[in-house]
Amino acid sequence: MLMTEMTKEQLEEVLSQAKSEYEGYKALGLTLNMARGKPAADQLALTRGMLDAVDSSSDCKAADGTDCRNYGVLDGLKETKKLFCDMLGVKDEELIVGGNSSLNLMYDTIARNYIFGVGEGKKAWKDQGKIKWLCPAPGYDRHFAITERFGFELITVPMKADGPDMDMIERLVSEDESIKGIWCVPMYANPTGITYSDEVVRRFAALKPKADDFRIFWDNAYCVHHLTDTPDTLLNILDECKKTGNEDMVYIFASTSKVSFAGAGVAVMAASKANIDYVKYHMTIQTIGFDKINQLRHAKYFKDYEGIKAHMKKHAAIIAPKFKAVLNALDESVKPLGIGSYNSPRGGYFISFDTLDGCAKRVVSLCKEAGVVMTGAGATFPYGKDPKDSNIRIAPTLPPINELEQAMKVFICAVKIASAEKLLAK
Amino acid sequence: MLMTEMTKEQLEEVLSQAKSEYEGYKALGLTLNMARGKPAADQLALTRGMLDAVDSSSDCKAADGTDCRNYGVLDGLKETKKLFCDMLGVKDEELIVGGNSSLNLMYDTIARNYIFGVGEGKKAWKDQGKIKWLCPAPGYDRHFAITERFGFELITVPMKADGPDMDMIERLVSEDESIKGIWCVPMYANPTGITYSDEVVRRFAALKPKADDFRIFWDNAYCVHHLTDTPDTLLNILDECKKTGNEDMVYIFASTSKVSFAGAGVAVMAASKANIDYVKYHMTIQTIGFDKINQLRHAKYFKDYEGIKAHMKKHAAIIAPKFKAVLNALDESVKPLGIGSYNSPRGGYFISFDTLDGCAKRVVSLCKEAGVVMTGAGATFPYGKDPKDSNIRIAPTLPPINELEQAMKVFICAVKIASAEKLLAK
Repeated sequence: MLMTEMTKEQLEEVLSQAKSEYEGYKALGLTLNMARGKPAADQLALTRGMLDAVDSSSDCKAADGTDCRNYGVLDGLKETKKLFCDMLGVKDEELIVGGNSSLNLMYDTIARNYIFGVGEGKKAWKDQGKIKWLCPAPGYDRHFAITERFGFELITVPMKADGPDMDMIERLVSEDESIKGIWCVPMYANPTGITYSDEVVRRFAALKPKADDFRIFWDNAYCVHHLTDTPDTLLNILDECKKTGNEDMVYIFASTSKVSFAGAGVAVMAASKANIDYVKYHMTIQTIGFDKINQLRHAKYFKDYEGIKAHMKKHAAIIAPKFKAVLNALDESVKPLGIGSYNSPRGGYFISFDTLDGCAKRVVSLCKEAGVVMTGAGATFPYGKDPKDSNIRIAPTLPPINELEQAMKVFICAVKIASAEKLLAK
Repeated sequence: MLMTEMTKEQLEEVLSQAKSEYEGYKALGLTLNMARGKPAADQLALTRGMLDAVDSSSDCKAADGTDCRNYGVLDGLKETKKLFCDMLGVKDEELIVGGNSSLNLMYDTIARNYIFGVGEGKKAWKDQGKIKWLCPAPGYDRHFAITERFGFELITVPMKADGPDMDMIERLVSEDESIKGIWCVPMYANPTGITYSDEVVRRFAALKPKADDFRIFWDNAYCVHHLTDTPDTLLNILDECKKTGNEDMVYIFASTSKVSFAGAGVAVMAASKANIDYVKYHMTIQTIGFDKINQLRHAKYFKDYEGIKAHMKKHAAIIAPKFKAVLNALDESVKPLGIGSYNSPRGGYFISFDTLDGCAKRVVSLCKEAGVVMTGAGATFPYGKDPKDSNIRIAPTLPPINELEQAMKVFICAVKIASAEKLLAK
């Protein structure tokens, strides 16, 4: 029976039972974590062999003879670039291999545009007064945090089943020159798990922003992170932008953080040649070059894009059952009560859960009190403020499956309590 | 006989002989390089074993149990920090381990202060109109390039035998609030090879800048890079600044680029706890953390600061003879002619050579034409403009010793030609 259709007495009965169950969980002294999209130890072990790919017997030479131990090569080894060019569908001249963090590449790109402008002769963002930024939400808290730190005004754009609300985006960017960019996770979006439809990608490419220095930050973090044998597909945004003459409008980011090692992977940035040339013009002042031995490790270990794809199936084998465990628990205990909605993603790292309005904070707080750490309620919205207080990001990858099942029991119990309290207060 | 005391006929004879010798070198089709301070292949091979320090048999755990393969740990592994804390004489809370590039840490520090100010409540440099920067010269071109790119006005400060001209620095910073910083390479300076005297360090620590957001960028790049058994010593600037109540005035940088791998080392930044806390407050928005597996490699391989010191003796054994070869050649062929002065450094990576005034560009150009690449004349000065056109940075580490000797013959021949031409034109 749906809780929304229950009588006061029935709700009180549910609440009473849930509270009693909850006290039991609290007594267990649990310390469980479904907060961050971190790979589990057995996933990290999948690339153990990479640590031997460049060892003391290696000459540390790249295919073109470059000694990877020494200085130089600003934009990355050719063979490492090839891996990612094939993955993202871009040319060698359209890609830079950076350090271990794509977030760092994004932050630096914002900082660069802020200080120097998006290209030669363009006005720096810092000199254009109030800057606004579009934030499809629910979205990635660390994206929002960067643009918030720079003092930009964050505008929430609702997420739909096929991507962000394009009507709203088209209208806003065509009207307002102070809107300089948008955050996108176009495939297996963080946290909603959806992939932008072909139409959405084409509408992005066809945008006619009033600001000629408007930029799409296309964080393709989960482009190879499929959970099923029938993966989503995503149109190549750079190709689409070339067709519309908008090729300088997009920066693409990706990394191997959830392919090889979360803390010691390789991150990349792709864009039009003009954009990449401009980035390199500044980057050559910032650094002599990133860690080429780690780039060589990745190239030697994965060999090619096919190697990455094959490797990702091993990740899926480990984490797909975890997603299934979360979804099974929700299907069994939440769905019949009508006290939450959630997606069933075909890839990525998250399940996005919506409580009844006004319950998310209470759920997360109850979980925390019982030793289950969730991403903070609101974190998926700009300024950490979820207008409906309903969205919770579930990250199922890190805990072992038995812990995950335990954590989900606590979570569901918390959802029941918060929902009953809410409905009773009406 | 000194060329400055030669008759016209004697000079013409020297010039004629040198030109004839020069044509001989050109005919050899040489491709030699004394341009950049790059370690030679045999130096890079010294840390070959580090590539096995974390291999597939490793659990990749830090001493405190941190899984180095996963996300997290913004400021670096404890044991890696310890290596550098001992090296620089600072506390754990006063240090951050970054990625592979100290230049990148410096650039980011400039950018951070430019965008956000040097601390909470401080005005951003970008909002303070014209910013000026002190550049002891000859100095490091990549330092100057950063502050030039940010549009700061670079003020040349002469280098003396015990450090930069402190009278000038004290006067300028006490008078001019728009002066926000200074570049320093305090030990085995790039390129002059001198180490700042205790008095100079104390005078730095005792500066009373008009700008309360004036910062010393103390690039201690060569702090363990001794060439002799009687190394220079450098006072601990942070300790000295604590004594004068100026502890927030200095940022210290170092790296293992010339200890382990130039392209895949570990870089660090040290400063007062207040400064480090502020850097972390921003850095946590910029990245989730740097490459911890590489940090672990360094900690496991070197074990402790004593390990680094012992290792540096191996570097000295390789490069000290190269310095000696350069100096011997100069002593033999330049000194008797009085056509150049140069230092004899006890550490670092460079020999700084001063031609007769107005000859440096000509020398570098002649070298280039004969296949010997030198650092561009003027590169050691702000804006690449050496007012006397006399300083040339010689980087002897990269070429094998036989190539170095060959390159020095060409160099000395070029110095003779340029000097004779100059003296004849008087």
